[in-house]
Amino acid sequence: MSDKLRIGIIGLGTVGSGVYKSLEKFDNVEIKQIAVRNINKPRSVEVPREILTDNPFDLVNNPEIDVVVELMGGVEPAWSYIETALKNGKHIVTANKELLAKKGEELFNLSEEHNRVVLYEAAIAGGIPIIMPIKTILAGNKITKIQAILNGTTNYILTKMDAEGASYEDVLADAQRLGYAETDPTGDVEGFDAAYKITTLATISFNSRIKFENVYREGITKIRKEDMQKSNELGYKIKLIASATIDENNNADVRVHPMLVPKSAMLAHIDYVTNAVALSGHPIGNIVLSGPGAGEFPTASSVIGDILAIAREFGTTEYLLPMMRCHHHSTANPVDINNTYNKYYLSITAPNAIGVIAKIGAICASKNISLSSILQKGVNENNTAEITVITEECLEKSIKEVVSELTDCEVNSLIRVM
Amino acid sequence: MSDKLRIGIIGLGTVGSGVYKSLEKFDNVEIKQIAVRNINKPRSVEVPREILTDNPFDLVNNPEIDVVVELMGGVEPAWSYIETALKNGKHIVTANKELLAKKGEELFNLSEEHNRVVLYEAAIAGGIPIIMPIKTILAGNKITKIQAILNGTTNYILTKMDAEGASYEDVLADAQRLGYAETDPTGDVEGFDAAYKITTLATISFNSRIKFENVYREGITKIRKEDMQKSNELGYKIKLIASATIDENNNADVRVHPMLVPKSAMLAHIDYVTNAVALSGHPIGNIVLSGPGAGEFPTASSVIGDILAIAREFGTTEYLLPMMRCHHHSTANPVDINNTYNKYYLSITAPNAIGVIAKIGAICASKNISLSSILQKGVNENNTAEITVITEECLEKSIKEVVSELTDCEVNSLIRVM
Repeated sequence: MSDKLRIGIIGLGTVGSGVYKSLEKFDNVEIKQIAVRNINKPRSVEVPREILTDNPFDLVNNPEIDVVVELMGGVEPAWSYIETALKNGKHIVTANKELLAKKGEELFNLSEEHNRVVLYEAAIAGGIPIIMPIKTILAGNKITKIQAILNGTTNYILTKMDAEGASYEDVLADAQRLGYAETDPTGDVEGFDAAYKITTLATISFNSRIKFENVYREGITKIRKEDMQKSNELGYKIKLIASATIDENNNADVRVHPMLVPKSAMLAHIDYVTNAVALSGHPIGNIVLSGPGAGEFPTASSVIGDILAIAREFGTTEYLLPMMRCHHHSTANPVDINNTYNKYYLSITAPNAIGVIAKIGAICASKNISLSSILQKGVNENNTAEITVITEECLEKSIKEVVSELTDCEVNSLIRVM
Repeated sequence: MSDKLRIGIIGLGTVGSGVYKSLEKFDNVEIKQIAVRNINKPRSVEVPREILTDNPFDLVNNPEIDVVVELMGGVEPAWSYIETALKNGKHIVTANKELLAKKGEELFNLSEEHNRVVLYEAAIAGGIPIIMPIKTILAGNKITKIQAILNGTTNYILTKMDAEGASYEDVLADAQRLGYAETDPTGDVEGFDAAYKITTLATISFNSRIKFENVYREGITKIRKEDMQKSNELGYKIKLIASATIDENNNADVRVHPMLVPKSAMLAHIDYVTNAVALSGHPIGNIVLSGPGAGEFPTASSVIGDILAIAREFGTTEYLLPMMRCHHHSTANPVDINNTYNKYYLSITAPNAIGVIAKIGAICASKNISLSSILQKGVNENNTAEITVITEECLEKSIKEVVSELTDCEVNSLIRVM
């Protein structure tokens, strides 16, 4: 056994380069091999040619490597490489949120079978220390609720729409030009990225497995600049919130959707590409951890933290990092969003201003829905009226019935309220 | 060796009771003995009479105890108990910020000598996960700056003064009545409590020892409601900030004093008894961790997290929790506050409104101080004027010279600005 922890890295993009540069100063680790797509591509980091390979299987089968750091993303072929690495007795550090969300159960079962650790601090909320704290210093808590901003691209877009009174389309184009959004932004703006992350975050927080297919998901593409403005007037900011709650019967309500967040809440003040995670549990109460959710260096901080944790114990014990293992094998029960209780923001254009508020009030009352705010500012030239409603907590199914019964009105937006 | 980790607790006050109640559900730990001042005192928790002792030496000399949890506070006699416990081969979990600040060096040297760990998550920022994250997942970072709200009592007082436009004296009396401030509030309001905490937090963040006597300290007793109001107008909140920076030559500027915090900063939104720690470093960038800074249950969360970390590794390795050890033995150089650069808020009552702004401007200019804001609203009936100034960054020594040269004015307040 070498006296240094020997690392193989799959992927030398933004994060991989950050890890490579930042690891140089630690003398207890050694980068043995790096798998890249194209060996001859010019790079921002200078890497000795002889440690590069374009075949990741070379690396996961290399007997001189102790830890495989997977930074390529996506389920396949990443899973094949990780599976082989674990079977070959290597520990895994990964930033692959999609793999964790979709293959988590197989991954952790396989790692326990081979007595190896899988660490993934970088996969959730980038640089924010969250996975290791939950597994270690917060281990005495029963965490029952998470509310988080886990996607920097959508938070950037929403913050810009709010600050500039601009439309979603205009800000998206701007974000794409600046590199904050991808050419195909679907993964971010439709909430997939946040949904991958909350799947794993809820799993470890609740000590009960969450299935990705049970995570309810809605993106930000339908948010209008008028919703931003009305929310502000009513004391809220609109954010894409990844949330999860679990009850005493192991029913887990896990979702990603836009929400009106009251300005009194910390999450309302998390702007641009910053991420944040609010956790509630016993005995701790409520905490909020915030910081950079992505980027070369913040992500490298988490990858390196994981590598150093392995390095510090490697060779001293047969059972490395006991607290960082997967200790739960039950699966939480899913909750149908239609059966959940939420507050709602409803923006309505009514064809005839006269009597419309009474009508909305009557329909809501018939569904057992109380209103906490109702706002109508004058009447449009064509005698239509713009009405904004915020409800008290009510059943999702009921508010959808209200929307379908408002047949002569146009419902512009229906957004949940924190 | 028992299959359970055997715990002795010194102190069964608020935190001790929280720990006792919360530990019951963990079957890998067993509370063997609890030292209390008065065995016959009625308590909120039911504790078997036979595990109580009124002599903490019984406990630290008890061969059936593996970990001593010290929750009594203060330097002596706590230090004598901890010293004996370490010499007897016991691990230590403590919430004692004063002991850590004043005896940290001896404590950690002694613990290493006996190959035992000293964990103290609860001593700094209560329930917020901060010590273990810095030692583990953030270990790859060079942290160079900390700005924190570490004292709940003063933050409660300042938040109340701001929200209600009330004076320091009125809010303090109120806080004392509600139990948020002690009868003798000196330890909190003069900044000692925050200074203890920043001493240890800076030491572990910078990997370089900070001496408590080198921490500059100013309390909140001179903050006027007028300062609160003016700060708000200018876009700031006043908070008691514990801060620390270190430069490349190991010079550490560590302090506790009130500051005007811009509303754009997260720390401006940390209200009442909530604490928060903002850290900056490389590669991570900036993160902010916030949560309950004190109280029975949040503090218990941290104490239990430390106990479980020991329990999980106890008996599996000779060298427990390597990352949680003290790895630094150098001491940082102190910095004289007079030689530091800061921005300042200055509130002045000038005897004669005519020409006073020109005079203030001239004195500042002569000391090489630029002004970023200056605010005078009308003239008082007696021809005096209230003037508020915010400077650009300038030398502390120079601003003090300005104050001493403003001989015909009354300087009401001089507060640093973030």
